[in-house]
Amino acid sequence: MSCSQTGIGLAGFGTVGSGVWKIIERNGGLIGSRSQGDVSLAIRKICVRDLSKKRDVDAPDELFTTDLMEVVNDPSVDIVVELIGGTDAAFDLVAAALRAKKPVVTGNKALLAERGAELFAISAEMETSIHFEAAVAGGIPIIKAVQESLIGNQIEDIVGIINGTSNYILMRMTEAGLGYPEALKEAKDLGYAEADETLDVNGWDAAHKAILLGSLAHGFLIDPTQVYVRGIEKVTPLDISFASDLGYVVKLLSFVRLRDNGAVEIRTQPSFISKTHILASVNGVFNAVAVKGDGLGDSLFYGRGAGQEPTASSAISDLAEAARSMRHADSNRGFLPYRTDGQLVPIDETETSYYVRFSVKDQPGVIAEIASLLAQHEIGISGTHSPVDADNPDAEFVEMVFLLHSCPFGKLKGALTKVEELDCLTARPVVFRIEKI
Amino acid sequence: MSCSQTGIGLAGFGTVGSGVWKIIERNGGLIGSRSQGDVSLAIRKICVRDLSKKRDVDAPDELFTTDLMEVVNDPSVDIVVELIGGTDAAFDLVAAALRAKKPVVTGNKALLAERGAELFAISAEMETSIHFEAAVAGGIPIIKAVQESLIGNQIEDIVGIINGTSNYILMRMTEAGLGYPEALKEAKDLGYAEADETLDVNGWDAAHKAILLGSLAHGFLIDPTQVYVRGIEKVTPLDISFASDLGYVVKLLSFVRLRDNGAVEIRTQPSFISKTHILASVNGVFNAVAVKGDGLGDSLFYGRGAGQEPTASSAISDLAEAARSMRHADSNRGFLPYRTDGQLVPIDETETSYYVRFSVKDQPGVIAEIASLLAQHEIGISGTHSPVDADNPDAEFVEMVFLLHSCPFGKLKGALTKVEELDCLTARPVVFRIEKI
Repeated sequence: MSCSQTGIGLAGFGTVGSGVWKIIERNGGLIGSRSQGDVSLAIRKICVRDLSKKRDVDAPDELFTTDLMEVVNDPSVDIVVELIGGTDAAFDLVAAALRAKKPVVTGNKALLAERGAELFAISAEMETSIHFEAAVAGGIPIIKAVQESLIGNQIEDIVGIINGTSNYILMRMTEAGLGYPEALKEAKDLGYAEADETLDVNGWDAAHKAILLGSLAHGFLIDPTQVYVRGIEKVTPLDISFASDLGYVVKLLSFVRLRDNGAVEIRTQPSFISKTHILASVNGVFNAVAVKGDGLGDSLFYGRGAGQEPTASSAISDLAEAARSMRHADSNRGFLPYRTDGQLVPIDETETSYYVRFSVKDQPGVIAEIASLLAQHEIGISGTHSPVDADNPDAEFVEMVFLLHSCPFGKLKGALTKVEELDCLTARPVVFRIEKI
Repeated sequence: MSCSQTGIGLAGFGTVGSGVWKIIERNGGLIGSRSQGDVSLAIRKICVRDLSKKRDVDAPDELFTTDLMEVVNDPSVDIVVELIGGTDAAFDLVAAALRAKKPVVTGNKALLAERGAELFAISAEMETSIHFEAAVAGGIPIIKAVQESLIGNQIEDIVGIINGTSNYILMRMTEAGLGYPEALKEAKDLGYAEADETLDVNGWDAAHKAILLGSLAHGFLIDPTQVYVRGIEKVTPLDISFASDLGYVVKLLSFVRLRDNGAVEIRTQPSFISKTHILASVNGVFNAVAVKGDGLGDSLFYGRGAGQEPTASSAISDLAEAARSMRHADSNRGFLPYRTDGQLVPIDETETSYYVRFSVKDQPGVIAEIASLLAQHEIGISGTHSPVDADNPDAEFVEMVFLLHSCPFGKLKGALTKVEELDCLTARPVVFRIEKI
């Protein structure tokens, strides 16, 4: 049993940072025991923006600094934990830590998804690892599962509910029939949404995580500008209600799917899935990631996707890993890209079936017009849904839903461009993919 | 990138062993890439009982032997994979491998649960690791999750469906109303049950896995003779049907639960859980393990609990881990017990609510007699259930179900001993725990 401690520098001491402090304080001894004495974590520097801010943990004053680089440069710090968010100062910090040969633990999905190419290059050059379990799906150990447990698997499919805020909002819209603005407000009131909710609801938070999972699973860096991302801001109670009529729920789903030709389909968008699918019952701020490996088959990982201690629990797991690796001269256990020939599937070539809602004028021939345009584009209709308002059977505008057979998204777009030219349409068609998973 | 290979000796070349071969053959290159060139696995010796047996993989004849010790002694073998089962020859093999400083990968839960004390002692003495991801829940990476990902957590609760055979049988009894013998026969016909199904259906296979999870989570070796284990052999369609009437399903559940006083409650038995709990929807031969950590909160791990490639996928993950560790002078990443002061909760002190079915003579005063005996023992009744046979309202024997408030199991047993003395009983009471999880 070794007793020497590993010094931690915390950059950022908000929710997750103080969670790391709490867990080390409460379970530090347990961590030592469970690691056979290999891991003894000591926080030695904490960088905050405002020294005077009241905090809910009792860390000694002398640990605090407002100078980010002190977290890297302090000689008693062996590992740097980046929890400041953003992609500029965080980049400089992580790069400096790696150049100082100090492993980095980060929860910053945006940083790695947007600037991973630069950082992984420095990581490789310096033989110093970046650990990011806390960046994807909070407390769920999906990074370790994909990178280590499934190392023997070709990872055929990853489908995730990996943004708790969106999932909460969609759940409330489904359960209580709330509109998007009301559900968002409720999420904010409960602390489930950030003051600036943009990245949560526009899909990019989930997409950043999917990009990281895609890189881990398939070994190449994924260009975020090539990833198709749609958020939940335009989802309406009407479509959620129609989805339910048809046996589906609407979830913000992220896909990383290996195609037969070796290209990877990666996208994030609100989608229909069957009410009976296990992912349909992932509610509230929980996250879940379904992974299919060619050896393992189907698996699912479920847990809290955010929150103080769940996310800190992942950071602690990374810290233990990094501390062990340092002690055992295992210079780099972190992820590094290993391919440069990875290909993404263009979104127009991705195939699913679809739900398309047309807002149309109630006039003779409307259905025939739309149906024949779809037929001209060789798009098959598997069903229709157009509930009649029992109280107002003569209403002038109607909602007409077509369920369409599987076809490439580009083909659907081509057909819809033509449909949009029809006079009978009163709004742009609303499209959801129907996912078979 | 390093290219030197790690030599594997396979003891046992049945379902899982040939799965290991297949995965290395198919994905060996991928494993190398994903491990940054650290892991290159080569199978160099295979021990089988019968050299002439036809096999579904094309391994060269010169690899085969019938001498177990050759797998250990061959100088080209660096890591020994034990897949022969049983606790005698397997023990000798694993002990010999560890003494030769060759890490061991095993899928043998019985061996580790029954003789772990001896083997972990040799592992510690020789600083050579035992890896057993394949021993618990097949392809689900629950060992790594508990040991590494949750290292910062006090693990408060583990509830698992960890025997696929039992789960399949109970599912068929529930879905199709089959009796136990018919459902067992079906499981055998489908290859879901071994020729000798004893350990699967008597609960011990699941209990062995729970014992390993308990040791991992709480750091001490658990004496199997102190663990309460009941199987599914006596579960009847009648109780499954009554469970359903009451909103429950019957599952073979294994618990590892930390009590406030630090003692650990560990048991395996068929139990009632609410139909709405996520574990209730784990069907067929799938396994699931729900884990609650004090930091992480609730999580769930779901996947195939058996089968060729899922289990081999776990063995490969262990092989990669062991190979990496050997390469990086990280002498022991495997589990070792770290406490000798662990306490188990005596089964009589474990508390749940209960379903108790009494087969009684249909005579006046029966309910009053049972209810007053329960009252004398201060056991509260929360409900009753006694369906009347609509076609035969005057039937002589009736089934009378009492739902009982939470109390220690010992107290219930004491009361039931008295109830059994009543003349009106025609059979011993049938008890199921109702689990709140």
